[in-house]
Amino acid sequence: MRISELSRRSAVPTATIKYYLREGLLPPGRATAATQAEYDEGHLRRLRLVRALIGVRGLSVSATREVLGAVAEHAGERHQVLGLVLGARPVDEDAPEPEPAPGAAEVDALIDALGWEVSEHAPARAVLGETLETLRSLGAALDPATLRGYAELAERTAVLDLEQLDPAADPLEQAERALLRTVLLEPALLALRRLAQENESARRGG
Amino acid sequence: MRISELSRRSAVPTATIKYYLREGLLPPGRATAATQAEYDEGHLRRLRLVRALIGVRGLSVSATREVLGAVAEHAGERHQVLGLVLGARPVDEDAPEPEPAPGAAEVDALIDALGWEVSEHAPARAVLGETLETLRSLGAALDPATLRGYAELAERTAVLDLEQLDPAADPLEQAERALLRTVLLEPALLALRRLAQENESARRGG
Repeated sequence: MRISELSRRSAVPTATIKYYLREGLLPPGRATAATQAEYDEGHLRRLRLVRALIGVRGLSVSATREVLGAVAEHAGERHQVLGLVLGARPVDEDAPEPEPAPGAAEVDALIDALGWEVSEHAPARAVLGETLETLRSLGAALDPATLRGYAELAERTAVLDLEQLDPAADPLEQAERALLRTVLLEPALLALRRLAQENESARRGG
Repeated sequence: MRISELSRRSAVPTATIKYYLREGLLPPGRATAATQAEYDEGHLRRLRLVRALIGVRGLSVSATREVLGAVAEHAGERHQVLGLVLGARPVDEDAPEPEPAPGAAEVDALIDALGWEVSEHAPARAVLGETLETLRSLGAALDPATLRGYAELAERTAVLDLEQLDPAADPLEQAERALLRTVLLEPALLALRRLAQENESARRGG
């Protein structure tokens, strides 16, 4: 397809596609004339992933280039590709383990108790630990059984998330889908909890 | 207690407490001398709620005053107080129903199917509808069965949320707790989902 068709199908403006080509985020098309090139479905999938990394995950162009480089090294390893695209694992495999954040011991204990297999680098560990510490400092700490209850519901949510991925899809396409659904669903899941809370409060005799 | 003790127990600086007193967010203490007043446990509970409305929900001083006014009109009606403090219902009972947002029909259908009792004014309705529309526009729409699956998990999360409220507590104290736990837990619940996704991806043979 021509660049105009690639633009139409991806909803990315032609000028932006040319910028991504110059920055090496997209491989060049097959030259058909001095000023024309042909693009294929692989370009479209890659362009959609680039758009999701920049527009949805909020990465810079250079961080996107690093993620794509690491993804290329692990092409075909779906779990690794997902982790890289979602930011659960670092692009630099030799990156030192992060310093333990506040609440890290509680998070480690929870992950151990559940038997979860999670990278030491996962940024979500620090987010969880810091939140638990904040609640504690405000006198509203969660008890371990309640925290475990929330974690088990998160486990079931993750099963629903993963069930929606097409196992036969191209790994880049699958990763793009997972990124869109993971990040963009976040406000919706929180909104569902707010609505469900209101209903539950009414149900309890409000 | 003196204002210094109120400051110590609430972790709110004395100057801030004086500002809240001038702005009418806290009722005056009982004057014991020309420049001294005594405060009680009611002041402390109210101060904690003010701090949560401003610091956690991010309300302005005037919006906080309006919420407190509406809460006072519904004192003792726990469900109403919770809805006001969490922002699920408007402080002005005569506020017109909001314009239907994108995706409103899908949200209405879901809430009907689940039999949830939710205010037409709940801002979470619009958040949910807009997210569903965004996913659709990106070609990553949720099918109704999956959306319902997420809603049922939100329902169980809300049960866990409400179970942690002490039914014997003062309604203002209960509302402050609910606000802290609802808002501050949000990043932790999303972090748990990210960690659970990584584990689920590994489990599926990553």
